[in-house]
Amino acid sequence: MGIVCAEFTMSLDGFIAGANDDVRQLFKWYSSGEVEIPVAASGMVFKVARPSVPIIEEMLGSFGAIVTGRRDFEVSNAWGGSSPLGVPVFIVTHSPPPEWLDKQTPFTFVTDGVESAVAQAKQVAGDKNIVVGGTTITRQAIQAGLLDEIRIDLAAMLLGEGIRLFDHLGQFVELEIMQVIPSKDVTHITYRVVK
Amino acid sequence: MGIVCAEFTMSLDGFIAGANDDVRQLFKWYSSGEVEIPVAASGMVFKVARPSVPIIEEMLGSFGAIVTGRRDFEVSNAWGGSSPLGVPVFIVTHSPPPEWLDKQTPFTFVTDGVESAVAQAKQVAGDKNIVVGGTTITRQAIQAGLLDEIRIDLAAMLLGEGIRLFDHLGQFVELEIMQVIPSKDVTHITYRVVK
Repeated sequence: MGIVCAEFTMSLDGFIAGANDDVRQLFKWYSSGEVEIPVAASGMVFKVARPSVPIIEEMLGSFGAIVTGRRDFEVSNAWGGSSPLGVPVFIVTHSPPPEWLDKQTPFTFVTDGVESAVAQAKQVAGDKNIVVGGTTITRQAIQAGLLDEIRIDLAAMLLGEGIRLFDHLGQFVELEIMQVIPSKDVTHITYRVVK
Repeated sequence: MGIVCAEFTMSLDGFIAGANDDVRQLFKWYSSGEVEIPVAASGMVFKVARPSVPIIEEMLGSFGAIVTGRRDFEVSNAWGGSSPLGVPVFIVTHSPPPEWLDKQTPFTFVTDGVESAVAQAKQVAGDKNIVVGGTTITRQAIQAGLLDEIRIDLAAMLLGEGIRLFDHLGQFVELEIMQVIPSKDVTHITYRVVK
């Protein structure tokens, strides 16, 4: 059985997007190296520094399902109608968008909370890991004790303003460092959530 | 001539102290290893993991002056009346505390801002580095372009609430990674501020 992860590129001052959801500066490390990695689901090609290669490869290959929130779905324009990683996406929302319900899509709208969404994601992910996205859903997953790992790609910059990853958590969470990979413009750190 | 640094132990969610200025959990890495390092100025002994030793030694030996804010002075109870690192301390404040002005102390109260405090600190520090403390003074030093390095001891935990290091900065700052040292319960990262 896979584990439940969150993976975010975060600035040193804790933001996962700048003003107006801008991520261009934050994602600089995706294109600041020399190793080309095609992203099948999107047609994009990353050019990352060599130490970042296993991070990207694991990100693209190890996840069997995505659990995220309605805001993520809206801001990305439903990822153009297909899954960002080519796997089923479970979107936690109070009110599913009617225009998406009759279509054949990779999206499942879950109205009974993050616990239910993670349970449904586990059913389709099999042995693969589940990745949790969106700051609200990630916070709820931590608070519900559902998160096994937090993977941070710590981008070398202060954004100064934007959307904070960890806000209003309101509880102490012990973490154990599993792996640290220094790279160009970014430091990759994997933490196990101590339960 | 030395450089101007900030050095903070920060939780993954960006706090340098918890509720009620509590730093006990945050500073766990100071005592989670096996190498004993006496802190001359305080009588304390740190027990840090081996990879953290050069970090502590540099922290204790490389600074020639401290620039910090009034809150830091108050919260620490004036560090018991002596400098926390045995070097002169310049405290930026609008209203110097009268009860401290006639005493022979390592404290200089600076009423004309952080730029003046850093200039005065440089005069006494000689070839040694200056360390900037306090979240407000650090933010002001970044905004004034005075800071050369940011050294973060990234503690493996989410504090959930407390005092944020980087808050209301409101501007983008590019950083260059100079050094990453993985250690027990902490990841030490040194950034150069790109000006």
